[in-house]
Amino acid sequence: MSDYFKDIAPIQFEGLNSENPLAFRYYNADQVVLGKTMKEHLRFAACYWHTFCWNGLDPFGGGTFERPWFAGGTPLQLAEQKADAAFDFFTKLTVPYYCFHDRDVAPEGADPRESHHNFKHMVEKLAAHQERTGMKLLWGTANLFSHRRFMSGAATNPNPELFAMAAAQVRDAMDATHQLGGENYVLWGGREGYESLLNTNIGHELDQMGRFLNMVVEYKYKIGFKGAILIEPKPREPSKHQYDFDTATVYGLLARAGLEKEIQVNIEANHATLSGHSFEHEVATALALGIFGSLDMNRGDYQLGWDTDQFPNNVPELALTMYYIMQAGGFKTGGCNFDAKVRRQSIDAADLFHGHVGGMDVCARALLAAEKMISDSRMEQAISERYAGWGQTWAQDIMAGKVGLDALADQVLANNTDVLPVSGRQEYLENLVNRFV
Amino acid sequence: MSDYFKDIAPIQFEGLNSENPLAFRYYNADQVVLGKTMKEHLRFAACYWHTFCWNGLDPFGGGTFERPWFAGGTPLQLAEQKADAAFDFFTKLTVPYYCFHDRDVAPEGADPRESHHNFKHMVEKLAAHQERTGMKLLWGTANLFSHRRFMSGAATNPNPELFAMAAAQVRDAMDATHQLGGENYVLWGGREGYESLLNTNIGHELDQMGRFLNMVVEYKYKIGFKGAILIEPKPREPSKHQYDFDTATVYGLLARAGLEKEIQVNIEANHATLSGHSFEHEVATALALGIFGSLDMNRGDYQLGWDTDQFPNNVPELALTMYYIMQAGGFKTGGCNFDAKVRRQSIDAADLFHGHVGGMDVCARALLAAEKMISDSRMEQAISERYAGWGQTWAQDIMAGKVGLDALADQVLANNTDVLPVSGRQEYLENLVNRFV
Amino acid sequence: MSDYFKDIAPIQFEGLNSENPLAFRYYNADQVVLGKTMKEHLRFAACYWHTFCWNGLDPFGGGTFERPWFAGGTPLQLAEQKADAAFDFFTKLTVPYYCFHDRDVAPEGADPRESHHNFKHMVEKLAAHQERTGMKLLWGTANLFSHRRFMSGAATNPNPELFAMAAAQVRDAMDATHQLGGENYVLWGGREGYESLLNTNIGHELDQMGRFLNMVVEYKYKIGFKGAILIEPKPREPSKHQYDFDTATVYGLLARAGLEKEIQVNIEANHATLSGHSFEHEVATALALGIFGSLDMNRGDYQLGWDTDQFPNNVPELALTMYYIMQAGGFKTGGCNFDAKVRRQSIDAADLFHGHVGGMDVCARALLAAEKMISDSRMEQAISERYAGWGQTWAQDIMAGKVGLDALADQVLANNTDVLPVSGRQEYLENLVNRFV
Amino acid sequence: MSDYFKDIAPIQFEGLNSENPLAFRYYNADQVVLGKTMKEHLRFAACYWHTFCWNGLDPFGGGTFERPWFAGGTPLQLAEQKADAAFDFFTKLTVPYYCFHDRDVAPEGADPRESHHNFKHMVEKLAAHQERTGMKLLWGTANLFSHRRFMSGAATNPNPELFAMAAAQVRDAMDATHQLGGENYVLWGGREGYESLLNTNIGHELDQMGRFLNMVVEYKYKIGFKGAILIEPKPREPSKHQYDFDTATVYGLLARAGLEKEIQVNIEANHATLSGHSFEHEVATALALGIFGSLDMNRGDYQLGWDTDQFPNNVPELALTMYYIMQAGGFKTGGCNFDAKVRRQSIDAADLFHGHVGGMDVCARALLAAEKMISDSRMEQAISERYAGWGQTWAQDIMAGKVGLDALADQVLANNTDVLPVSGRQEYLENLVNRFV
Repeated sequence: MSDYFKDIAPIQFEGLNSENPLAFRYYNADQVVLGKTMKEHLRFAACYWHTFCWNGLDPFGGGTFERPWFAGGTPLQLAEQKADAAFDFFTKLTVPYYCFHDRDVAPEGADPRESHHNFKHMVEKLAAHQERTGMKLLWGTANLFSHRRFMSGAATNPNPELFAMAAAQVRDAMDATHQLGGENYVLWGGREGYESLLNTNIGHELDQMGRFLNMVVEYKYKIGFKGAILIEPKPREPSKHQYDFDTATVYGLLARAGLEKEIQVNIEANHATLSGHSFEHEVATALALGIFGSLDMNRGDYQLGWDTDQFPNNVPELALTMYYIMQAGGFKTGGCNFDAKVRRQSIDAADLFHGHVGGMDVCARALLAAEKMISDSRMEQAISERYAGWGQTWAQDIMAGKVGLDALADQVLANNTDVLPVSGRQEYLENLVNRFV
Repeated sequence: MSDYFKDIAPIQFEGLNSENPLAFRYYNADQVVLGKTMKEHLRFAACYWHTFCWNGLDPFGGGTFERPWFAGGTPLQLAEQKADAAFDFFTKLTVPYYCFHDRDVAPEGADPRESHHNFKHMVEKLAAHQERTGMKLLWGTANLFSHRRFMSGAATNPNPELFAMAAAQVRDAMDATHQLGGENYVLWGGREGYESLLNTNIGHELDQMGRFLNMVVEYKYKIGFKGAILIEPKPREPSKHQYDFDTATVYGLLARAGLEKEIQVNIEANHATLSGHSFEHEVATALALGIFGSLDMNRGDYQLGWDTDQFPNNVPELALTMYYIMQAGGFKTGGCNFDAKVRRQSIDAADLFHGHVGGMDVCARALLAAEKMISDSRMEQAISERYAGWGQTWAQDIMAGKVGLDALADQVLANNTDVLPVSGRQEYLENLVNRFV
Repeated sequence: MSDYFKDIAPIQFEGLNSENPLAFRYYNADQVVLGKTMKEHLRFAACYWHTFCWNGLDPFGGGTFERPWFAGGTPLQLAEQKADAAFDFFTKLTVPYYCFHDRDVAPEGADPRESHHNFKHMVEKLAAHQERTGMKLLWGTANLFSHRRFMSGAATNPNPELFAMAAAQVRDAMDATHQLGGENYVLWGGREGYESLLNTNIGHELDQMGRFLNMVVEYKYKIGFKGAILIEPKPREPSKHQYDFDTATVYGLLARAGLEKEIQVNIEANHATLSGHSFEHEVATALALGIFGSLDMNRGDYQLGWDTDQFPNNVPELALTMYYIMQAGGFKTGGCNFDAKVRRQSIDAADLFHGHVGGMDVCARALLAAEKMISDSRMEQAISERYAGWGQTWAQDIMAGKVGLDALADQVLANNTDVLPVSGRQEYLENLVNRFV
Repeated sequence: MSDYFKDIAPIQFEGLNSENPLAFRYYNADQVVLGKTMKEHLRFAACYWHTFCWNGLDPFGGGTFERPWFAGGTPLQLAEQKADAAFDFFTKLTVPYYCFHDRDVAPEGADPRESHHNFKHMVEKLAAHQERTGMKLLWGTANLFSHRRFMSGAATNPNPELFAMAAAQVRDAMDATHQLGGENYVLWGGREGYESLLNTNIGHELDQMGRFLNMVVEYKYKIGFKGAILIEPKPREPSKHQYDFDTATVYGLLARAGLEKEIQVNIEANHATLSGHSFEHEVATALALGIFGSLDMNRGDYQLGWDTDQFPNNVPELALTMYYIMQAGGFKTGGCNFDAKVRRQSIDAADLFHGHVGGMDVCARALLAAEKMISDSRMEQAISERYAGWGQTWAQDIMAGKVGLDALADQVLANNTDVLPVSGRQEYLENLVNRFV
């Protein structure tokens, strides 16, 4: 269909000794790891936006990529060409899933109805591509941040008419996700935050956001969508401050809106580090709070203060993240989405494959490392032993609320002995991790 | 009593034209601003720790301060000398309040009972000093982070015996705060977090923390303490990650423990900026979430990644913070505590006064600026006008839960018109602020 | 000519009591301060780029500004309309200077000659506008970072043909700057750095950069340009690492190329903070190293890791910068350029004036504060006294190279007495600064 | 001699399958890699300071380590016990080198002469230990930052008498390094910088620093010391700003003092990341500038803004650093020093071994990866091909200064064709690196 990737053969597993840069050396889709195939565990998705819509523009320069579907036809024709190229790419890459924003796949129209119809038109095309190729939709979402009208936010806009415009887009995007069998629906609030406190009523905006989230959950049940609703935390950029700053903040937002059982998080590695946390911190926190959903596998650059969305390539960093997820039973509706983009200088069609193939192999290595960590069990044992004291009856009584401050304090004075600390053994444990990566 | 500050005369208000560096030029305690005196609004407190306990040590060098109460007596004798000097300082400075950790005022003993008795002894001395001078206690707290035994946390320690040791210290500190008429009790969790995920069970530790907070609240009611319970957020340092990362995170912790109506936050400017937020952001967020309590008025250095605890000295930065607080009705149990320390090179007794006098004057200027902002009302109007659309009936129906996603989306398609954005006017508003500072 | 700003009256000084938001309250062009008028000291310039070319685009959204010169004519017609509007703006704002990149004022052509001719054409138009209005050019520069061809650098491109393309643009931009009476020529190396070490030969690129700088200086002398050649340091963005990271790094680059007497720095406040320094640090360092040239007066946001280019609005922060410059004799060829942009949500024509008017007033306040600091002289005295020991003969002998390590060490052992430190008095000095702002 | 480590057997290479946590799995001292043994390449050193002097103190808590040589004897007796333990540790660890500050090995005395004699006494002890064990000294240095007298700097102190005190310590430390056969002498300027510009004369301090460095180099020649003089860059901490901010800044300092051929850099991974650079950036820059000397192998934590000095444990991160060094011919006088400390909670004697053993194994893996990168040669080829155009005669003429801006610009206009960019292939290259780690 599309011939943009005609020089690229479908990517195959060739094993460790392959010298083919466009083959997998670790990702063997059907290899069984911890009771499931790699494909079933990792649930890879490629994203529409960075790979098919971005033209290489950055704040200091214009586009560098010259994709054939960027110009030379009507907007809908170009959208169809883009979809042809995208599904060609997805299938050659052998990812089972893809993800999109509404405006990635269909052009904004001249008015709300035209936008609605453009999108409906393209959703039919996507459905046909899915049918044809067997591709599945990991998640859909609505782009409520690129258009000028949303410059001051969508759900948190000071103008309720723009809240309504956002609602209209989200209904369509949820309908499309449902129709296409999407396994999750994601909300990312790029402009749900503020540029300046001087023109912002935080309390009102937080209330608006809580209401919007409730409307989304209500609509999910209304249409019978079985997938998960996810929020993607990010601390800032494009806004100065985003209300979904990080996983712990999102937990608070959800609790305030009564939704902590209804909505989970889609954690991005790059957003994690921009918020001052490691990727594994965000994942471990979400698991501890019961709101872990899915992953965006794109790293940042530790020296840069903005979202670079690079492909993952550091195995030791990912191994711990994968370990925590696998230890907790693996992904449910979520998966590993590459919300990653090739560098602005990587202008060849093949570069898109290099980025994804390398990223997939790194995830597969991390999964294999996680398998070793779990089989070995020393990491888990070290934790269990460290907290073993809490298994004692008197300690369980504390946690059960049977003992108060007063009683504990009396007990300490009665015993009148100090408690000696024991080594945290961090270096030993770090070395242990290095055995598995 | 103490003669360490014998060369310093009590600090007085001398007005703008004073060339005396140890006089107030703005802080006029009895001047009425927004319906109360400056003293009643600002509720200044000096802290025991940085000013009387720290010896100037940093990670790369030893003490530089040579206070007379650092050596030359038994620990209790030195504690008494320190208290003499402290109250001499507080009264000369004319702050109405002070704050302390248990271990600031009394030495750790050889066993729990000795520590308990040392502290009780010194609390009697403090009570006498308060009686003698009229000084009041803004808040008390327990130091659960300096002693070796708490190296792996206190409430979140993997060993329940250390949780009990922490409980014992907190009971004593709460009792003392109650006895001394303290208006708040503060919890700062310097080691309630982790150094490495490899030896940490986040979920269990969060449960421990929730239980500990509940025990504190239960005990407050048991003893009839009328003050507020406050948590002081900080993202990290000394730990790699602290569970009370920032105000939004603390809200989530409280909601998870069912305590969002019981506990408020004590916000420190330096901790705010270390967590990636402005000071005014943290204050505005706490006000919006209904958990604003008190302030620590010590700034960080924007170029440094650790807690420098410097005295405030940038009026424009503080003016907005003061504006939000005054606009919301001012402090209730909280106040402005200087959890600030003079620089390690500021080794003279007079330097302690320079730091506080400058800080108090800066706060007074910020209060005067806030008064102007409120009287002028243009800042408030700009916000009201921007959100005016939400006052319409159909918009109120959205917030009241009467309208769902579907209905809003239908309305947008029926209207079929785009909504134009309006200017956020940030530059105009920033200039407006500059009229008042 | 242009009617875009037709509702804006020329900005005038109205003094402190003016309630007109589009009047100066501090900037009184003809008021004499430290021996010169404010206008002569501050040498304000507005920039072409952010104010007339940027459409409000950011990495997550499209343009929000709808300037009449963005569409509806041939590229050269639009460039002429833009120039009309720009000079209308400059004159209403009453700044004496402006600054531009070659591609701001004239469109890129289909080939090098067309670009060259477009630029020549527009330079004639600029000359006519200057003649008509009395406006002067503070500096010109070449945009070697926006076009796709320079994605891997200009002077440091791995391809020498692109080095040549850069040379061609710079010659034209230098010629234009000379022709228009520009007082400086600036080099900003947005892509003179790297994205990845994996495809970069740092040593070769540093040699290329040194050679290019020498070519620029040689050409300056060849054409008899009397202005200063300036480099604008920035640590990163758009590149991961830029070779002109900060002032100290630029000094090293210049020294390596033998140009430390030939080239100076144009210091931007936002770039300073992105490099981990305060603005005043960069200025004080440049003055100490003898390479101070000019200023870009646009601040960053301390919570954001990218270039926000906001108008200055914090007087205390600017006052020290202005103090160091005035203490060293003031600007020579340089001035205060607003390389600042209104926020993406500030979409009205008036917002452009609000930004600049507020920024100019803040600079004027900073200048007035600097005047007070200099008149008062206590700040300077504190420094002189602190270093007074170096005026002793034996100390001067050290600096003159007459005494070696051995002799000094012998002297210490012979004296055999410790040296006591004295207070750095930082809090006193910070309070002193607050008297003047 | 010391029995602190009596339960630890000498560390041995046991290979990949060893389950002994205190054995090397990769570091096989005598294994030949790239023409030399691992021992000869890596030149491992352990440091005295963190491992034998630090007691676990941090800014929020006291010591946690209870080493037998911390108390219970005269200062000199304790220093001797510490040296016994240190050499026991070094030899069991099988590092060939160690490093020290003067005050690590000998106690400060009551006056300069006593300090001098204490140090001389302990240097004799160290010499005897070296003789007995075969240990060698990688570098010595003087601690000019811990004592109260140096709170305002040493070489850059406002008081010339403290400059002299610093000179006395450095002479002794250089003499000792020379006597003990040290292969380098290091200068780290922890307080050579400022806390506040308000009390600082940057220009004078930079001159002082330049003079001090020249005195050190003069003294090196005077005593015939054959080792290298090294500066260790660090951006800040303990000071707000340090004059040796990073490698590029140090190059400028050296050039200004005429010493760029005489002094090299000792690059620490943690200092690199604190200055906003990757470790490999600092190494590649030093190699490009001809001032690469030695390494401190201690990483920071990307989420923390202070010096954590952790043992290295991320192989991919170190592999590139090792690749650049090996590609440039390997270490000359420098080596891999572990300026690293175990975590404050790692209180057991064994933890010191876990930290070092893990770190050495990670370095060995990085060396093995570098060997593969060099043997494979595709990484080097990618660079050579990218810059191949610069080998053309006309391009060499540019670099040789034979062609000016004018001639190049004329050539571009004469050709009148655009130059197309080519892909930077970053994703391909990142994947290539992952083949070797």
